[in-house]
Amino acid sequence: MGVAAGELRLGLIGLGTVGSEVVHLLEHNADELARKRNCRLRLVHVASRSIHTKPHPDLGGARLSTDPWAVVRDPELELVVELIGGTEPARSLLLAAIEAGKAVVTANKALLAVHGEEIFSAAEERGVPLGFEASVAGGIPILRTLRESLAADRNHALFGIVNGTCNYILTMMREQDAEFETALRSAQDEGLAEADPSFDIDGIDAAQKLTLLAMLAFGVRVPFEAVYTEGIRQLSQTDILFAREFGYEIKLLAIAKQEGGLVELRVHPTMVPQRSLLAGVGGAYNAIVVQGQALGSSLYFGRGAGGPPTAAAVVSDILDATRTCGLASARQLPGLGYAWKELRSAPIRPMDEVVSEYYVRFQVADQPGVLAAIAGSLAEQSISIASVIQRGRSNSDASVPLVIRTHAAGERNLKAALRQVNQLPVVEGQAVCVRIEENLG
Amino acid sequence: MGVAAGELRLGLIGLGTVGSEVVHLLEHNADELARKRNCRLRLVHVASRSIHTKPHPDLGGARLSTDPWAVVRDPELELVVELIGGTEPARSLLLAAIEAGKAVVTANKALLAVHGEEIFSAAEERGVPLGFEASVAGGIPILRTLRESLAADRNHALFGIVNGTCNYILTMMREQDAEFETALRSAQDEGLAEADPSFDIDGIDAAQKLTLLAMLAFGVRVPFEAVYTEGIRQLSQTDILFAREFGYEIKLLAIAKQEGGLVELRVHPTMVPQRSLLAGVGGAYNAIVVQGQALGSSLYFGRGAGGPPTAAAVVSDILDATRTCGLASARQLPGLGYAWKELRSAPIRPMDEVVSEYYVRFQVADQPGVLAAIAGSLAEQSISIASVIQRGRSNSDASVPLVIRTHAAGERNLKAALRQVNQLPVVEGQAVCVRIEENLG
Repeated sequence: MGVAAGELRLGLIGLGTVGSEVVHLLEHNADELARKRNCRLRLVHVASRSIHTKPHPDLGGARLSTDPWAVVRDPELELVVELIGGTEPARSLLLAAIEAGKAVVTANKALLAVHGEEIFSAAEERGVPLGFEASVAGGIPILRTLRESLAADRNHALFGIVNGTCNYILTMMREQDAEFETALRSAQDEGLAEADPSFDIDGIDAAQKLTLLAMLAFGVRVPFEAVYTEGIRQLSQTDILFAREFGYEIKLLAIAKQEGGLVELRVHPTMVPQRSLLAGVGGAYNAIVVQGQALGSSLYFGRGAGGPPTAAAVVSDILDATRTCGLASARQLPGLGYAWKELRSAPIRPMDEVVSEYYVRFQVADQPGVLAAIAGSLAEQSISIASVIQRGRSNSDASVPLVIRTHAAGERNLKAALRQVNQLPVVEGQAVCVRIEENLG
Repeated sequence: MGVAAGELRLGLIGLGTVGSEVVHLLEHNADELARKRNCRLRLVHVASRSIHTKPHPDLGGARLSTDPWAVVRDPELELVVELIGGTEPARSLLLAAIEAGKAVVTANKALLAVHGEEIFSAAEERGVPLGFEASVAGGIPILRTLRESLAADRNHALFGIVNGTCNYILTMMREQDAEFETALRSAQDEGLAEADPSFDIDGIDAAQKLTLLAMLAFGVRVPFEAVYTEGIRQLSQTDILFAREFGYEIKLLAIAKQEGGLVELRVHPTMVPQRSLLAGVGGAYNAIVVQGQALGSSLYFGRGAGGPPTAAAVVSDILDATRTCGLASARQLPGLGYAWKELRSAPIRPMDEVVSEYYVRFQVADQPGVLAAIAGSLAEQSISIASVIQRGRSNSDASVPLVIRTHAAGERNLKAALRQVNQLPVVEGQAVCVRIEENLG
């Protein structure tokens, strides 16, 4: 039995959208997959809480359990696929499977972003393959690309649209003149956003993905907490329209840069030039730009979520395991490209020291002198203005938007200037601030 | 010695642009590469015709030869990189290295497109790794992506901008109002086109790349001769401008489709919708769209040529070999995803049976009845017209362009109609014909 004899025996934990599609792919493409790797992928044991109560796809002759531990402890299995998500019991299950010498495949970005050290180290010490291609950007094979294809290069920046929900909302605000709340409701109706959407729209999901991407791109350890995270709730249609007037689109970008020994890690709404390919990435699609010394810019685009694309990524990891299961540790490729203990601990640039160009929208009284007051506050912080759009109204009692684009300025200076401006009596509410990235390849 | 002891001993044949950059990357990134794979890449033997007469990069302690056979026969080497291109002696050298049990890495698309059966079969029978990522689209890791990342899926179409020279020329015609000859000269001045540019601009280079891409995407044997090939010489600025009026850009696309058991393989100028990402791929960049059943559309973009990107692809193949050198045949991943003998022999759809929408530009006398005559010929072949642009001139002696966009029609019918139209006395010269692709993801 086993890989050497042309068979890999699989266990699967979780039969949700992705799990069911994994079963479908394994069955539907069984003969092709066997021909490709000269090895049959045999689903031997499946666990799901609701396996006896809810409909599920035909599982062939696989054993069924409601207890995931039955899968992890099944001595016949060579590989366990974990698709239940969350921290526990996923963490303990994966660690137990690894400890038992099984290969593991997971789509659990939250677990790996937060408990990466424990999981990656365990897999490396035990010498088992750990696949997690499905955990970031669904069907886009960005993890394998960073780990293998771009391995010869030194990367200095990565820019990603990695949350399909936010990209759907921003696209709808742009193309259908929808306000944020309307677009969010539409995303919820489409099944793209949860009833409590904060995990997506506050940027947490993107920050978890960025944690893994940055470790792979730069070979550094990234604590999830080090990622500066800002979501898209504060944006209004007005901002989308002004952005276009300046020649930009607004995207929620996950950004990692490596410069002068420091690593920058941030997730926030970002203005990207309309001529850039990222600007053309609409709807629930994802895309990632990587900038390397030898390669220059490269871009990877596709469906970042959904059952079939994510399942295809899971099965690609299973196929990888047919080549490495049972081999010595030295033949295993560490999940992050470097063994965990070989990752560098690079200092993270504090957000206050990040330099960027900014778009800032103030809501101001429509009267003379307002621009002078605001420009004065910016000048005090040595922030120079690249352009201004000021719209008057016929009814001068109402407030109007005043929009400023700055030249490159430090985050600390901008914040200090905004604190002062937000207190001016002619300024209503808080300024909305969007960073600008010009050089996306 | 050897991989097990943490060292891979390399030979390199060819010290041109790419070869020199490979040497640079191996030296410049030596420590990082060793940390990634727990294996040092040691350049032991280098051959170049001009090694004693031309300047070359520092080769450390490597042995130098003018005879490539000295590298292939060097018993100390575990891997040979071939970067001399062309058919012979590259073919014999690769076969000899394989026969000697060495891993091989090459960027030689012409060799693999035409002599693929011989080279791939030899590597598989001998059980040695064969890397050729650099042979298609330079720094874009499309081959590894098709072979590994998309391996779980069934692909049904692939569209590629894979010739940077043509894309540079078409971009210049579009953005700088240049005619074809001017743009070609500019490409030659930039070092992007050869003195004899026909290999690039007649689509042969793209057809060779498509041969390899289609085999990988569909798991079928593709004889290079089966690719229908048409270049960009016949295009004029007028066509670029009309395309934009219809909402398209013109790109030289390499297209592979699999439908109803038949495979379509063609390289020709193609109108792609302005809203598609491929339309935004400018200059010497390359991009490839893959459409799969589970994954939907995904796109891969980057620098398709040049020393550093191509060298990065070569070194990524060397890194792969650190994991598989010396392993049993069953652990080697065949170069085309399937072992050569497992590739299907799918019938190729004859070009006459391809169905497409068309843009056709006629140069006609500016007089009444011309459109009626042309429309009549098209109607006889059951080709229906989607739209027409007809431009009059003040001086009615001169001929004017008449442009027609058709609905979907068979190639055979279109050709028959054009034969008839080209003979009308009111039509000057030959019609220019560009196929339209709407569904690029």
